[in-house]
Amino acid sequence: MPNIYAGELVEVSQEVLAGLGALARTAGQGFITISNGHGAWQMALCNTLSAGDKVLVCESGRFAVIWGEMAAVSGVQVEVMAGSDRGPVDPEALAARLAADVNQEIAAILIVQTDTASSVRNDIERIGQVVTDSGHRALLMVDCIASLGCERFEMDAWGVDITIASSQKGLMVPPGLGFCWAGPRALTAYESAGLRVGHFDWAPRMNAEAVYQNYNGTPPVSHLFGLRESMRMIAEEGGLEAVWARHQVLADAVRAAVQAWSTPDGLNFNITSPDHRSNAVTAVRTGSVSSVELQERCEAGAGLTLGIGLANSAESTFRIGHMGHLNPPSILGTLATVEAALRAIGAPVGTSGISAAAEVISKSL
Amino acid sequence: MPNIYAGELVEVSQEVLAGLGALARTAGQGFITISNGHGAWQMALCNTLSAGDKVLVCESGRFAVIWGEMAAVSGVQVEVMAGSDRGPVDPEALAARLAADVNQEIAAILIVQTDTASSVRNDIERIGQVVTDSGHRALLMVDCIASLGCERFEMDAWGVDITIASSQKGLMVPPGLGFCWAGPRALTAYESAGLRVGHFDWAPRMNAEAVYQNYNGTPPVSHLFGLRESMRMIAEEGGLEAVWARHQVLADAVRAAVQAWSTPDGLNFNITSPDHRSNAVTAVRTGSVSSVELQERCEAGAGLTLGIGLANSAESTFRIGHMGHLNPPSILGTLATVEAALRAIGAPVGTSGISAAAEVISKSL
Amino acid sequence: MPNIYAGELVEVSQEVLAGLGALARTAGQGFITISNGHGAWQMALCNTLSAGDKVLVCESGRFAVIWGEMAAVSGVQVEVMAGSDRGPVDPEALAARLAADVNQEIAAILIVQTDTASSVRNDIERIGQVVTDSGHRALLMVDCIASLGCERFEMDAWGVDITIASSQKGLMVPPGLGFCWAGPRALTAYESAGLRVGHFDWAPRMNAEAVYQNYNGTPPVSHLFGLRESMRMIAEEGGLEAVWARHQVLADAVRAAVQAWSTPDGLNFNITSPDHRSNAVTAVRTGSVSSVELQERCEAGAGLTLGIGLANSAESTFRIGHMGHLNPPSILGTLATVEAALRAIGAPVGTSGISAAAEVISKSL
Amino acid sequence: MPNIYAGELVEVSQEVLAGLGALARTAGQGFITISNGHGAWQMALCNTLSAGDKVLVCESGRFAVIWGEMAAVSGVQVEVMAGSDRGPVDPEALAARLAADVNQEIAAILIVQTDTASSVRNDIERIGQVVTDSGHRALLMVDCIASLGCERFEMDAWGVDITIASSQKGLMVPPGLGFCWAGPRALTAYESAGLRVGHFDWAPRMNAEAVYQNYNGTPPVSHLFGLRESMRMIAEEGGLEAVWARHQVLADAVRAAVQAWSTPDGLNFNITSPDHRSNAVTAVRTGSVSSVELQERCEAGAGLTLGIGLANSAESTFRIGHMGHLNPPSILGTLATVEAALRAIGAPVGTSGISAAAEVISKSL
Repeated sequence: MPNIYAGELVEVSQEVLAGLGALARTAGQGFITISNGHGAWQMALCNTLSAGDKVLVCESGRFAVIWGEMAAVSGVQVEVMAGSDRGPVDPEALAARLAADVNQEIAAILIVQTDTASSVRNDIERIGQVVTDSGHRALLMVDCIASLGCERFEMDAWGVDITIASSQKGLMVPPGLGFCWAGPRALTAYESAGLRVGHFDWAPRMNAEAVYQNYNGTPPVSHLFGLRESMRMIAEEGGLEAVWARHQVLADAVRAAVQAWSTPDGLNFNITSPDHRSNAVTAVRTGSVSSVELQERCEAGAGLTLGIGLANSAESTFRIGHMGHLNPPSILGTLATVEAALRAIGAPVGTSGISAAAEVISKSL
Repeated sequence: MPNIYAGELVEVSQEVLAGLGALARTAGQGFITISNGHGAWQMALCNTLSAGDKVLVCESGRFAVIWGEMAAVSGVQVEVMAGSDRGPVDPEALAARLAADVNQEIAAILIVQTDTASSVRNDIERIGQVVTDSGHRALLMVDCIASLGCERFEMDAWGVDITIASSQKGLMVPPGLGFCWAGPRALTAYESAGLRVGHFDWAPRMNAEAVYQNYNGTPPVSHLFGLRESMRMIAEEGGLEAVWARHQVLADAVRAAVQAWSTPDGLNFNITSPDHRSNAVTAVRTGSVSSVELQERCEAGAGLTLGIGLANSAESTFRIGHMGHLNPPSILGTLATVEAALRAIGAPVGTSGISAAAEVISKSL
Repeated sequence: MPNIYAGELVEVSQEVLAGLGALARTAGQGFITISNGHGAWQMALCNTLSAGDKVLVCESGRFAVIWGEMAAVSGVQVEVMAGSDRGPVDPEALAARLAADVNQEIAAILIVQTDTASSVRNDIERIGQVVTDSGHRALLMVDCIASLGCERFEMDAWGVDITIASSQKGLMVPPGLGFCWAGPRALTAYESAGLRVGHFDWAPRMNAEAVYQNYNGTPPVSHLFGLRESMRMIAEEGGLEAVWARHQVLADAVRAAVQAWSTPDGLNFNITSPDHRSNAVTAVRTGSVSSVELQERCEAGAGLTLGIGLANSAESTFRIGHMGHLNPPSILGTLATVEAALRAIGAPVGTSGISAAAEVISKSL
Repeated sequence: MPNIYAGELVEVSQEVLAGLGALARTAGQGFITISNGHGAWQMALCNTLSAGDKVLVCESGRFAVIWGEMAAVSGVQVEVMAGSDRGPVDPEALAARLAADVNQEIAAILIVQTDTASSVRNDIERIGQVVTDSGHRALLMVDCIASLGCERFEMDAWGVDITIASSQKGLMVPPGLGFCWAGPRALTAYESAGLRVGHFDWAPRMNAEAVYQNYNGTPPVSHLFGLRESMRMIAEEGGLEAVWARHQVLADAVRAAVQAWSTPDGLNFNITSPDHRSNAVTAVRTGSVSSVELQERCEAGAGLTLGIGLANSAESTFRIGHMGHLNPPSILGTLATVEAALRAIGAPVGTSGISAAAEVISKSL
């Protein structure tokens, strides 16, 4: 265990805290929680809301809804603006709902940029514009857990008040750190927040003199070293713009493969609109094909772990993650293995997906 | 990242969760938080208390008081039973206070087994007896962060309702995991707890069907592997009894050294009563000697990091940690280096402390 | 540094030495050199030959010839039986040469199972039969550096006298260990070998009482732990037969891709005969296509390192290694990336190689 | 496995090869063997001697003698200038022997700077002067395996022709690399050396164009990274002068302890002359005390591994290594544990050695 009062650990902590804002493109205040992403959700809720407040959950898959359920445990009223698990949140519906809230009862809007189950990408830039244009007091809280470091995200430019992320996806660090960024409107809301709890309380963390105050106790030593390395890797690659561009190419390759495999009674994209497919993960509907059997073939025969599922369609969906520390050989190897497994189980496939994916990659070489 | 739905990680999680109870000697329910020890404090408070409840903080150093301050943020009334930073909580004073609380207003008693700043060891067995004998409804909550795995602790036999610990001391895992054990009275209190927050909520964690529910989200992968190894190391050494015996010998060696160094105007134990000195850490008052200078000599000349301080005596106190993964050469090397530094700065010392410490160790070889 | 006289290191050393024979399928004596494969070549030469002896080098690429050059430095006469770098050693030519050596001047025959530059696989079983049938005294020395753990090899059943290997290919350990196995005829030759040098001398290593004698000095601590893990991984996979079967499938996939890519003026196999293509590595002639440009595209754009070259054709050859710790996703990812790079530079390609490779893999799932 | 033809590994190899000369304080040619120290001995012998040559072994413990035995395997005549295992080589005896060799039959002188068994430190500066003053053609070959990086050594200034070392002592890298430096007279001797073997041959290594030629085959990847880190650590500490100074202080502390423990029938230094005790290791004669029992107490009770032995006195000698990556706490912890074990077995001891050692360290803080 290193000294937590002086020396290298203090420098590491200062370096990562100083670099937090750039990750979310914000001049706001960044916080690190020792937790998974759900802990960072909790920090956002506790520091800005009071019991009896209302939050509007913008449904587009599973995770915004679960975040809302967390708020409900604290006595917050939760209204779900129903959405699909095959498409994005509708900005116009949000505009209408805010316009209808003449008494400004909604204290916060909860939305994800990417839902890792449905693989939707919400248009946060447009959502932010809607909230800004509405003149509503509601805070815009965006969960970027699955998308930060994979997908363009501009917290300040897009009018986002709170951003949430965690260490184990685009940031390439083992799970164990959550992130929460707060803009000016969120910090104002903090002043009257009734749900504050000591462990997540912003004030002592903002005014920290010693490293342990930034983490409300013993700092997460090993993860801080990991996060510093991750930030340096991003810089060495050319910064976030370069990292986003790499994810775009790899996601395009995945989508080319899925498009090629598609058949009327077989595979297809879960997200129907091409404009709203995530650059971090792609969910695939398998139609008449058993995703469980597909998963088993990949695992047993090729050592590839395929994520299956989506709440109500575990047997007919699988997901390909394409986030974080990966390159063309790793994503192409995944796609080729899936294609081999599809053939092995006699699934109906259109044309060679892996060939189409290689074609996409060839344009980036 | 391993699969979190099946395979090795699931086995690791099940193994460590199954082994939790034995660490605290309880048949109660164990929980793992992804956090430092303060996060586990928060879990204990949120799941058992309501705003307006009163907690009685038993002061004996710094940490129980800080725990109380955390409770106050949530609107809990905090009464501090004043104590010294040079001695233990007085069980008879606690008995008197509970007897005086005829309306049973006190909902919980917060106490540490070992205060890592003062190095006191409270007599939790006796404290537990006092609470039990009083017939009071107050929950007995014990912070074993600095002592678990170093010092005998018997949660059930001693009548403790909630126990708190963390990964980075006696359990020898990097910081990043907190632990909370709840006995029957605590689980009953949970049913009416008004401070519940979703991230720390016990019910979903107790009834988990999938690994992620045990951790309210993504599990702490790397730390779970570390914890499993730690539990196996404890078993290989002969179990907790053997681990406690090793800590006893090493702590005796430290105390023999401090005793030998002691002079009227120089070094002495912070904890005046020999019966209440911790087996995990020893705080030393340095009298006329500058602990800052001592620290600097050890660090610059010998690569040894000495912890100094105690709230109001940073310049005249230092602490020697003797917890977790250590053996006679490591603790004797520390003591000999301190002795060398004491000589280097011309500090008054009685006799050779390292010689006395080696004498203690010789009896265990 | 662990104790090298007792305890875990001694157990590790004993375990790996006891397991050596099974790796080469021999009841003969196995030796570990701290070296690369060339050090193991040297051990074989020094312990069996004398200055003035003649060795017959069976050319089929680069490495047997280099081994012969090493022998020449010690004053051994070297005769090269000329071969091609696009095909195997001809067993009938060897039979004829041995028959012609009526005075039995040839003391040893040097041959590789797989030449990692040409990617040929020599038929060692047939070669062994030729030597046995000839009744010649010459020792058959086989370099399995590139093939051990990838390709069936039966030292005793095939009549091989000395086998050479190293740690960093099929055995999946970092470079730093060489291996030499000696059968009965080789141990007889040792008795009169004039080239013996102390560091490689067999006798003290065979009669070792202490661990350091097995390595003529300090043992290679970290590599021994690695080798033990490697041996355990092979056992967990189901033993050498299972490992060979996996290599066969992956090599078939590579060959299916190369076959699909082949065109008259573009890519083709370096080894013309399908029966003599290695299961560990595949060398590809690129015809009019620049292998240097192909390498650059793979490296810069996709992070894939492609080996190019062959003594006299660096610009028009590349090689795909498929040995050791790899699985379908890793080999398919490599092939797909090469295919993308071929398209990127506008190389003539027949049909989709990666699609063909995925078809091969599908049959194994 | 990294690319061995371009990129980071090439840079690492170039950096360590460029830094070799500074380690031995020479402008001569440095070579790295993938081997232990014995492999580096072999390289020195093979590249400078011929069968029938005579070497003069300067005995002062075990290792020079063993080196001579290695030479004898290659047909070199070995003359041992008898010495003690309790003291250094006598420079005047060497001067006399060289003077008597009127026909200059001696081709090389083999000597160690520190014998790790006896813990003697030979005065290589004086030895070098003797050889130079003699005008004899004999090469001076010095084994610095146990001393390089611990003890001042100036190859060029002292007139040394060949220096030998290995990775696992003062250079703090796991065993697996040997080092050999050759000065101008050694390189001249190479031209007519009859014992050359290919694997150790200097010419191809000196004229290497590709990395693999520097190592006669696949480079020792993981160890090269380790060696680079080691060289950087030495530079960060302030260079060899600072490293030597640290070893001096730590060795002085060890000697103060042994001196304090000494009694007529108990412990004492193996090396009788204070001027010839090594800064890397200290051998202690235990008189009536069983070193085996001492070793067992340290190992079982305190986890400390004590080296015992010396060819003919295993039961009454032990050794304390104080080389490489260590600091005051580690060496003082070792000494205090030995003192505790001495008391545990009731050994006669003078005064507290650990107290005396701490006194020495105090002067350096």
